[in-house]
Amino acid sequence: MNKIVLIGATGTIGKAVAAALQQREHEVIAVGRGSGALNADIADIQQVRALFDKIGKIDAVISAAGDIHFGPLAEITPEQFAIGLRSKLMGQVNVAQVAAQYLNDGGSITLTSGVLADTPIRYGAAATMTNAAVEGYVRGAAVELPRGLRLNVVSPSILQESLPAYGPYFSGWEAVPAARVAQAYVRSVEGVQTGQVFRVV
Amino acid sequence: MNKIVLIGATGTIGKAVAAALQQREHEVIAVGRGSGALNADIADIQQVRALFDKIGKIDAVISAAGDIHFGPLAEITPEQFAIGLRSKLMGQVNVAQVAAQYLNDGGSITLTSGVLADTPIRYGAAATMTNAAVEGYVRGAAVELPRGLRLNVVSPSILQESLPAYGPYFSGWEAVPAARVAQAYVRSVEGVQTGQVFRVV
Repeated sequence: MNKIVLIGATGTIGKAVAAALQQREHEVIAVGRGSGALNADIADIQQVRALFDKIGKIDAVISAAGDIHFGPLAEITPEQFAIGLRSKLMGQVNVAQVAAQYLNDGGSITLTSGVLADTPIRYGAAATMTNAAVEGYVRGAAVELPRGLRLNVVSPSILQESLPAYGPYFSGWEAVPAARVAQAYVRSVEGVQTGQVFRVV
Repeated sequence: MNKIVLIGATGTIGKAVAAALQQREHEVIAVGRGSGALNADIADIQQVRALFDKIGKIDAVISAAGDIHFGPLAEITPEQFAIGLRSKLMGQVNVAQVAAQYLNDGGSITLTSGVLADTPIRYGAAATMTNAAVEGYVRGAAVELPRGLRLNVVSPSILQESLPAYGPYFSGWEAVPAARVAQAYVRSVEGVQTGQVFRVV
């Protein structure tokens, strides 16, 4: 049994990941911005530090959190690009950078990007940029982690559960159930790989 | 002959690109933060808007500009990650977003990333993250550009000319001369491709 911090625990992916981890008898500490057992806005590194300081030593951390702006390319402002950079990119980077100091030897960090990192869609420029950056951080940082710590990222396609909200952006795409995506996080936590992108498409 | 705005014109890559473009008889408008015919800090979109407003209609824009912080992973602060995000990422995004409004039909935008986007090195986490983000923006935005506008990015390896400054980070790497890198920009400007990463390694 591992002690695992799950950030974004009440989101669509987070709920499925929590269920998958509990089925594997891991202890899950649920964190959300305004929900879950503990609260933190990961865009603020001070809140991330306070969070892990309260929790103490852990075996793994998973982040399935972060906002991104969608809109027509010509209308995206620097402030709208910054939403994803502050939240989904630097929020998750904050989690990884701080968690590294609280993880037991051989511990695991898993972040979340998205299939748009690889494949552009209409109105998705900020998402492709931000998700590619998250994967870049993972690729760049994994090689420098000490004590056998591992760092990976899960890149899910459009979720079946998210089709009501995002379906119009993804005409013709094959949606994946959150329960399938959740298994990639289990694989990241319990496996041996590092610096990898686990794509669920 | 094309009218081409070259941002970062007095840098190591910029000088080689200017020479290659002039050899092809293009008109080059040299822009730098504090040098060149015109000045602009691309991290500030207002300065980018003022720059293109002054220049008017163009056929192509090339950006070979942007700073990134190098340092040990555990010591990189959010502020140091932000250096690359503000300068090499959003600076170049500002250029592309604004230039799109001033380019003639079929015009070309070429940005610059770097080989670290693909390949991590010690002390390079912020560089891998930032360069991957630049490539993500290009991949995401190219599909939405109107009027046959094209958007590509050149990803050079360590330059021979930069070995005195950055050589210690790149032990065993094969350095490339800036003159070879410059040809990738020519290819981007004069070719037909869009959304591509032109790697020079």
